[in-house]
Parts: sequence; C-alpha cells; structure tokens
Amino acid sequence: MTESRLKSLLDDRSSGAPASRIVRAMSERGALSAAQIARLTGLARSTVSTALSELRNSGIVVEVAGGEDSAKGVGRPATALTLNPEAGTCVGIHIALDEVRLIVADVSHSVISEQIMTLGRDYSPEQAAAITKDAITKAYAENGLPASGLLGVGVSVSGPVSPNGEVQRASIVPTWAGVNIKSVFGPVLERPIFADNESNCAALAEMMWGAAVGYEDFVLFKIDRGVGGAIVSGGRVVAGVAGGAGEFGHVSIQAGGELCRCGNRGCLEVYASFIRPLEQLSRIHGRAMTMDDAILLAEQGDVGARRLIEDTGEVAGRGLGLIGTVLNPPLIIIGGRMALAGDILLTPLVAAYEKHTLIKPRDVGEALRTRITIGKFTENDALLGAVGLVLRDQGRLA
Amino acid sequence: MTESRLKSLLDDRSSGAPASRIVRAMSERGALSAAQIARLTGLARSTVSTALSELRNSGIVVEVAGGEDSAKGVGRPATALTLNPEAGTCVGIHIALDEVRLIVADVSHSVISEQIMTLGRDYSPEQAAAITKDAITKAYAENGLPASGLLGVGVSVSGPVSPNGEVQRASIVPTWAGVNIKSVFGPVLERPIFADNESNCAALAEMMWGAAVGYEDFVLFKIDRGVGGAIVSGGRVVAGVAGGAGEFGHVSIQAGGELCRCGNRGCLEVYASFIRPLEQLSRIHGRAMTMDDAILLAEQGDVGARRLIEDTGEVAGRGLGLIGTVLNPPLIIIGGRMALAGDILLTPLVAAYEKHTLIKPRDVGEALRTRITIGKFTENDALLGAVGLVLRDQGRLA
Repeated sequence: MTESRLKSLLDDRSSGAPASRIVRAMSERGALSAAQIARLTGLARSTVSTALSELRNSGIVVEVAGGEDSAKGVGRPATALTLNPEAGTCVGIHIALDEVRLIVADVSHSVISEQIMTLGRDYSPEQAAAITKDAITKAYAENGLPASGLLGVGVSVSGPVSPNGEVQRASIVPTWAGVNIKSVFGPVLERPIFADNESNCAALAEMMWGAAVGYEDFVLFKIDRGVGGAIVSGGRVVAGVAGGAGEFGHVSIQAGGELCRCGNRGCLEVYASFIRPLEQLSRIHGRAMTMDDAILLAEQGDVGARRLIEDTGEVAGRGLGLIGTVLNPPLIIIGGRMALAGDILLTPLVAAYEKHTLIKPRDVGEALRTRITIGKFTENDALLGAVGLVLRDQGRLA
Repeated sequence: MTESRLKSLLDDRSSGAPASRIVRAMSERGALSAAQIARLTGLARSTVSTALSELRNSGIVVEVAGGEDSAKGVGRPATALTLNPEAGTCVGIHIALDEVRLIVADVSHSVISEQIMTLGRDYSPEQAAAITKDAITKAYAENGLPASGLLGVGVSVSGPVSPNGEVQRASIVPTWAGVNIKSVFGPVLERPIFADNESNCAALAEMMWGAAVGYEDFVLFKIDRGVGGAIVSGGRVVAGVAGGAGEFGHVSIQAGGELCRCGNRGCLEVYASFIRPLEQLSRIHGRAMTMDDAILLAEQGDVGARRLIEDTGEVAGRGLGLIGTVLNPPLIIIGGRMALAGDILLTPLVAAYEKHTLIKPRDVGEALRTRITIGKFTENDALLGAVGLVLRDQGRLA
C-alpha cells in the first residue's frame, strides 16, 4: 500500500497537493528539513508540518539522523526527513560498449544491489533487455524486495539519445544506432522507461545529490577512455535538438589535426582520451595497464605515469577553456575515471583552463569566478543518474 | 491613467490575474488573437474574452489589422489585439565604442523615435547618462509623448555585463570597465533601469518578435567588426557567472594562432571579424570601405568583395561548427552587419558548419537538424532588445 501510495504521489504532477509536492522534492533532493521543504516547495510552514505528519503516519516519510556530507558543505541538517526506503525502488541500467551494468536503489537513492553483465561487443538490444529482466528478478529475490515496488527503469546510454528515446548514429555502441530504448525495454520490463545519455545522467546525479547541489547552472566534463560531458542550464540538462549537446570530446582544438573516429579532425578526444597514454604505459611496463593502475603508479611516485596524467590534464584544460568561453559557467565538475587522479590531473587542468578561457580569475571578483572541482560520483555517476531519471520523472519515454 | 494602469498590470508578476497575464503576454509577443492568448496564458477562452473586453473598454488594448509578417511565417491572424501604443513607452539605449544610440518604442515595440549621439572614444559614463537624459526629453517633446508614460530604460552594452549590472573588464568600451549601469543611469533618469550585453539583447529581440519566435532554445551568432553571440536555453538568455556566456568570438580555432586583443591566441574573431577584409578592400579600391559597401559590391558582382565575404562565412562556419558540437541547438540565427550579405555569407557558412560540427544533417531526420537562418532585426537588434528587457522585466537592476 505504501508503495502504490508513493507511486501515485510521485506521479501527481498537476494537482499541486502539498503531500505530492513534498514527496517529489524529497525524491529529487534526498533528506530535507521541514524548513528546506517549505523553501523548495513554496508551501507555508504550517502546511508542510501538517502534510509531513500525515506522511510519517502512513509510513511514506521517515526521520533520519542527518549530518551526511555536512563536512563537504552540502549542509544537511542534524535531523531531517526522507522518503521511507521501504516505500519504493528504482532500477538504473547503463548500456556500455561490451557490458550492461545495473543497480537497484531505494527512493532515497541508497544502492541496494549492483550487477555487471558482460556481453561482449555488438550485443543486441534484445539480449540486453532479456538479461536486464533476469538481473532485476534475481536482485529483487535476493534482497527480498517486492516487485510491485519498482517505480521505473532508467537507462543510461553511451551515446546521444534523442528526446523520443532513439539512440543516435554517433553512439559508441554502433549496433544500437537508431534503436528506440522504449520499444526495446518497455514490452520486456513492463514498467515506465526513462532514458538519456550517460553524461546527462551523470550530471543529474551530481545535481541531485553530488558536487552540484545548489547549482542551477554547471558543466560536467568527463575524461575517461572517451571525453564527453553535459550542460545544465536553469536546473535542466540541455539535451540538444538531436540529443547531442555536451559532446565536448568532439570540439576541434587543432585546425586540420588528426582524424577522429567521429569523422572530424583535431577533436579534443584525440588528445585528451587516456587510451594512448595507457598504450605507452603498457609498453614501458611490459603489461596491460588500466586507468586505475596508472593513477596508482602516479600516486606512488612513478614520474612517467604522473607526466601522462598531467599532460592529459593540460590538454583537457585547454579544450575546457574554450567551453568556458562559450558558457562561462559558475561550476565545472570533472568526472570520468581520470578524475580519480585528483590534484595530479586537476592542477594542470585548472592552469590550462585559466590560460585559454576568455574570463580569467584575475578579471573578476571571487563570486564571479568559475569553480572547477572533482565530481562526487565518479565511480557510478551514470547509474545513479539513471535512477535520478526515474525519481525526477525526467527523460520519461511516453 | 491608462499608463499607470498598464504599468501596474505589467509589474504584477504574482497575483496571476487574467488581465495582468494577458498584458504581459502581449508585451512579450506583440499582436495576438484571443485564441493565441488563451494558449499562451493557459487561461480559459471565456476568461480571456471577459478580461479582453474590460481591457478594451479601459483603452489598454486595441484591435489592429493583422497580417504583419504572415508571409514570413510568424502567422499573425487577420484580426488581432495589441497593447494600445498610447498606453506606455520604453527607451532602449546602446552603449557603443564611440556613440550612444537611443530608441523610444511603444509597448507594442513600434519604434517612435531614434537618435544617434556621437561622443568620440573614451566618453565617460556620466557623459552618457547626461546626453541620454537630454535625448529622452527631446524625443518625448518632439513626439508629444507624456514623460509619465515611460515605463523603464533598457541599456545594451558592447561587452559582458554581470547580473548585478557591472560592466566587465572584457568590454570593448574600456573606460566602462567596472562601471555599474544602475548607479550611472538610475539617479539621472529616475526610472527602472535594465541592462544586458548587446548580443543578449539582440537574442531577446529575436526571441520576442523575430526569427526565434516559438523557440525556447537557440544560438545567436553575430558577425560584424567583432564576433559575438548569445545562448538561449529554456527561454532564458544564458548569462554566465560573470556575464560572459556566448562570447563566441574568443573561442580558439587555431592552437597557438595569432594573438587576439583579448590576450588569448587563435580566437575566432581574429579570422572572422570583417575588419581585415575591409582593409584589403579599401586598399584595392583606393577609398575607405564600409561593410555596406562591401556587401553592395559583392551583390553587384565584384569577385573580390564576394570572395572576402565567402571566406568570412567559411571560417565563421567552422567556428560555429564547434559551438554546434557543444550545444547542438535547434536553431542558429546569424546576426551582425555581415548578415545583411544574405546567402553570399550563409551558403559557405552552412557548408563549413556541417563539415566541422559533430552531428551532421545526414546523421539525423529533418526534425532533429539544426536550422541556420539570418536574423530579422540585424539593423537594430540590440536597441529593440533593450526595449525587450523593459517589457519582459528581465535584466532589471534592483
């Protein structure tokens, strides 16, 4: 009962009933104090108070010990209220080059279960849907979760997704080009399906619960095997007319430069992807190296690994400087696996950004400067964001 | 009386009264049919009808013969209603390198009067405020307009303006760096002051009445002596944390390229500004050439003038391709004086854009393609947009 009540409150976008507005605010923001709820919803304190006690009595909202992240400045209160984790669950999946990853999370975005299904390259959408269905069944059985509590499934795709849910040609999973996510997953999973590009999902996770809490405008810039990102403007992820906004890896930084897999020349990704540095490092060390290996080596003082990461930071910062000239955002979040290198990457990146962007820190006061920081959810931002799509009812495929 | 009634209706952003919502819609969109008003405001047809007859009786709204622009697809109805041009006026001014331009417009954004005040380089903000006051007094006297009808003054600045109204260092009017527009104009003009960057103003004019009507997301790209632009996302001009969003002229398109006046290298403006082509053309023809001269020559078949414009279109299209990769907008409007060259500029520009941007027309269906078109208000977009700031109550300096 609690589940279906929560579902109907989350779905109720039009009545403006206080309980519905409170539940929606909590699903977007996590734990909140009564004062924060009043501010976010615009409801009177007394109205919030009445609605909250009804929601607590019916088991939809529970009190939690706060303090999470207060050290990082998110400023959670000492006592706060949150959606009852038992009141509903979401599934987030990520469609990657040769695997499908899946998490089950409760409505407070706590991860209950995580699975990685390795499929090999060129797996079909139908395979992905079938394996996802099995994985969900298994996860719900193992964790004693009622299937009826599943509110929806968010799908994060490694490539542009048009607003109607179609994967675009430029996707890095070529067999999925032109595939409609809703048509593939809807009939098999029989739940509301939501979809977006992985970077847009990551931006949503950072905005809802991470390094961008409190920001309405920011840029997410991902450095990994590929280079990508997302733009958030006015609290909304900018999709682009064909789902292609935020494709920072394909901004040209070298006129007539080397050919990129996208068919253009001199793309940032050619110079800032960490694939080539890994190849070099593997040759030097005589064994296949991963990004995590490279970061660990650099942290342990290996000058070669350190230099490769620094050079990546520098060229990425140069490309990012250009994006800063276009958008002049208040905040830039660095994500992707390379962000785990922390300051080894960030220091040269910030220096290059400031050298190459139009408005430099020295030009303006503190409050008008672009802040550059490492993301909070680098390890699983796309999956958490896929869950965020469901909780925020964003990217829903009608 | 009509003036003060209109002012209070325009100012009333919170009550949601039908008359106020109708008046605000008309001030943003110009002439509208009752059906369009119902759609835009979300009010019931019967409510619109009642409110409109009251507004007509009190002289705030008048009937106009429609059909304006229907050939251009704006789709004005045969009979439409508009704000009574006698019910109020706005002033828009533009702070340029060596002159201040001013227009007086009525609430239907019809221009009543236009003046250009030449001041020479490095004029002071105080000079500008004093000359503006005199020009307003003169314009109102000459046109028999009551001073009490002046709703506000919008200020368009050739350079970034921070959200609090401060002109940033990167301005092309160096003596104005750090100047607060409100502090300069407020005490002298004694009216609400609004301010924004000239390109942001231009974008607002195109969105309210021009080539971007019906679009919530688009990019304005200006090619003139300088290169600049604006980004509109979700119906809102993106300002940037320091007012620097949309500075497309300072996106680097050539690594280690020629030094730009901004202190960076290889900026798009170095290659796409029309200053150097004009110098070449002036040498060839043995007399000082303006942009209008160059366009006229090209139209008359001068192969040199034509080539210079085409080359400008090509390099601008390349830079714009990169901005398209970042934003993937549904619409790009080409503005600035060079836009008056029409297809001579646009054809090579579009070809270069498609060559260098990530998502190409061949990749996606018609509905997902970026449309590139010439703006409607190239001649006076910044001034009309300054009027738009007042009518939309946007950029108001509190």
